[in-house]
Amino acid sequence: MADMLNISLVNELNYEDFISRFGNVVEHCSICAAAIWRNRPFRDVHHLHQEICSFLDLLPDTGKEGVLRLHPDLAGRLAELGSLTQESTAEQKAAGLDTMTPGEKQLLGETNIKYREKFGFPFVICARQNKKEAILKGIVERLEHSAAEELNIGIEEVKKICLLRLLSIVTDDKSRNM
Amino acid sequence: MADMLNISLVNELNYEDFISRFGNVVEHCSICAAAIWRNRPFRDVHHLHQEICSFLDLLPDTGKEGVLRLHPDLAGRLAELGSLTQESTAEQKAAGLDTMTPGEKQLLGETNIKYREKFGFPFVICARQNKKEAILKGIVERLEHSAAEELNIGIEEVKKICLLRLLSIVTDDKSRNM
Repeated sequence: MADMLNISLVNELNYEDFISRFGNVVEHCSICAAAIWRNRPFRDVHHLHQEICSFLDLLPDTGKEGVLRLHPDLAGRLAELGSLTQESTAEQKAAGLDTMTPGEKQLLGETNIKYREKFGFPFVICARQNKKEAILKGIVERLEHSAAEELNIGIEEVKKICLLRLLSIVTDDKSRNM
Repeated sequence: MADMLNISLVNELNYEDFISRFGNVVEHCSICAAAIWRNRPFRDVHHLHQEICSFLDLLPDTGKEGVLRLHPDLAGRLAELGSLTQESTAEQKAAGLDTMTPGEKQLLGETNIKYREKFGFPFVICARQNKKEAILKGIVERLEHSAAEELNIGIEEVKKICLLRLLSIVTDDKSRNM
């Protein structure tokens, strides 16, 4: 893992280096970093996050669905193959998804499939802010929602994941002063 | 290179396989494929292309700039390092960019830098439809444009590149009937 950057260093990055550092703060969706680079200078990591959130909000619904489709299934095939991004691996582990019982794994796997069939995109949740029990409960509940509700909830989860990923790259000067 | 697909097979792909096959028809910008998957069934490769063009047109200007920033410089650092995507390598070679004289290379390199400094995104041109002489002439001329003009021209070039990439993946049934 590269050293963390303070916001002054972030603001000095050319777009190639910026995309290289921030390209995966939204999973597999480097257009987010590429789009907001022109809004430098960023005041702090939260300003950077706000710009990405605003960009996500500006996307047409098909684009928001696309953002969700670039996310892996939780504890799905990619996790089993060890083919998740570095960020996703750490997040799914933090939620305890690597310690599910066979019964929990089966429930999550089956509900993932139902969710994808109903909505046409995967169940996305900020794994770092939920333990496996909450995730299993969440997916069963969210399966009852409408597609419009889930598109909205999914993008809000993407924003939470994004903030935590940003905080692992950029020092948060404000919190250091507390 | 995987076998080419006819449009019926394309329409049967789940979103993961669709993104895997079409994720780079717009360079490093798999959200385009991810976004349009829901618009199946596609009538033919040109319909698929039209959906991607419509998605690009719907992006806010920051997103269009982001699309351009995900493209490499022509005959730039990545080409020298051999780090271009497979598609870009073939395209730049088709334009004869690998046979530039030292003088041409210097001109392109210097003009690339000026272009990026002026516009904040790289010069994008459909290399397969231009030979190196036309590319060198084009970048010098386009450097005189406004940012709004170049954003528009750049995205139109992205669409041309996208069609040629699609035609290397999906059989064009119409042309086979001619």
